[in-house]
Amino acid sequence: MMGSADGLGIVIQPIGYVETRYSDEEVSRSWPAGVDGSIVVYPEYGEGLEGLDGFSHVIALAWLHKVSEEERRTLRVRFRRLTRLGARPEELPEVGVFTSDSPHRPNPIAITVLRLRSIERNVLRVSGLDLYNGTPILDLRAYTPAYSLKRFELPSWYRAILGKFRLFEG
Amino acid sequence: MMGSADGLGIVIQPIGYVETRYSDEEVSRSWPAGVDGSIVVYPEYGEGLEGLDGFSHVIALAWLHKVSEEERRTLRVRFRRLTRLGARPEELPEVGVFTSDSPHRPNPIAITVLRLRSIERNVLRVSGLDLYNGTPILDLRAYTPAYSLKRFELPSWYRAILGKFRLFEG
Repeated sequence: MMGSADGLGIVIQPIGYVETRYSDEEVSRSWPAGVDGSIVVYPEYGEGLEGLDGFSHVIALAWLHKVSEEERRTLRVRFRRLTRLGARPEELPEVGVFTSDSPHRPNPIAITVLRLRSIERNVLRVSGLDLYNGTPILDLRAYTPAYSLKRFELPSWYRAILGKFRLFEG
Repeated sequence: MMGSADGLGIVIQPIGYVETRYSDEEVSRSWPAGVDGSIVVYPEYGEGLEGLDGFSHVIALAWLHKVSEEERRTLRVRFRRLTRLGARPEELPEVGVFTSDSPHRPNPIAITVLRLRSIERNVLRVSGLDLYNGTPILDLRAYTPAYSLKRFELPSWYRAILGKFRLFEG
């Protein structure tokens, strides 16, 4: 009954999309800083943004629509983005997709924390965008302490990567 | 072209599901601590879990399958869960769904941070579960510093709620 992934599937309508003047290549190269841009929420959902003012960050769920069917069959990945920071591919560990935030995964949904700059009607101006222009947005919510663990552990191989590339320090 | 939410929609197949011996009512009442349980990843995706060992927490995206079509049309909500901590409904601010993490939202996807207790083949033993037995899981990833902002701001009305109900302290 619940033993397999076969089924009719869940159908999701996006609530908006990403708008940025940067090319896909520029967005990719901007990691980890990201680029400036907007999240345009469809007007029929605009009322749902009430109260977001005053939160410095939002979490967006995005559907990575440029990931191919073949890429969705990926189950093992390397941390390839680190090559942009100077890593050699062979020094990057190969891990399961659910250990990584690789866009190549069975359901290519990005969980991305964005700096909220301003809100004008149904448009959020954001920075820290690592999403391409036109990317569908599935959901959006205020970043609250529920997401910000103070105490958590990482395996030593992962800590070594963070340290070597000085990621997420300070 | 991108001006409305009409379209064919995105079809998603779950990668697994929640298993817990607690009833829906018990899960609801357990907030914010949550209950113990498992995330069962379908065997065909099991390889994707490699490397998760040693991370203390995972983030799961869950499809809240018991939310009705009518509830999905909700755009304004109160923080109703706080009534479980003693709040009177009338003292809870009404905000847009995208400001809250209410399950009643256009795409009822939960973003939930779970304590990872152990992994056995394709089954993750977790605690801190706020998901009902049988809830489909859409995606899963290690909780890393990318999700844990050290500096972020909250509006004063929201800080007042956290303070009053002593949520997410320490």
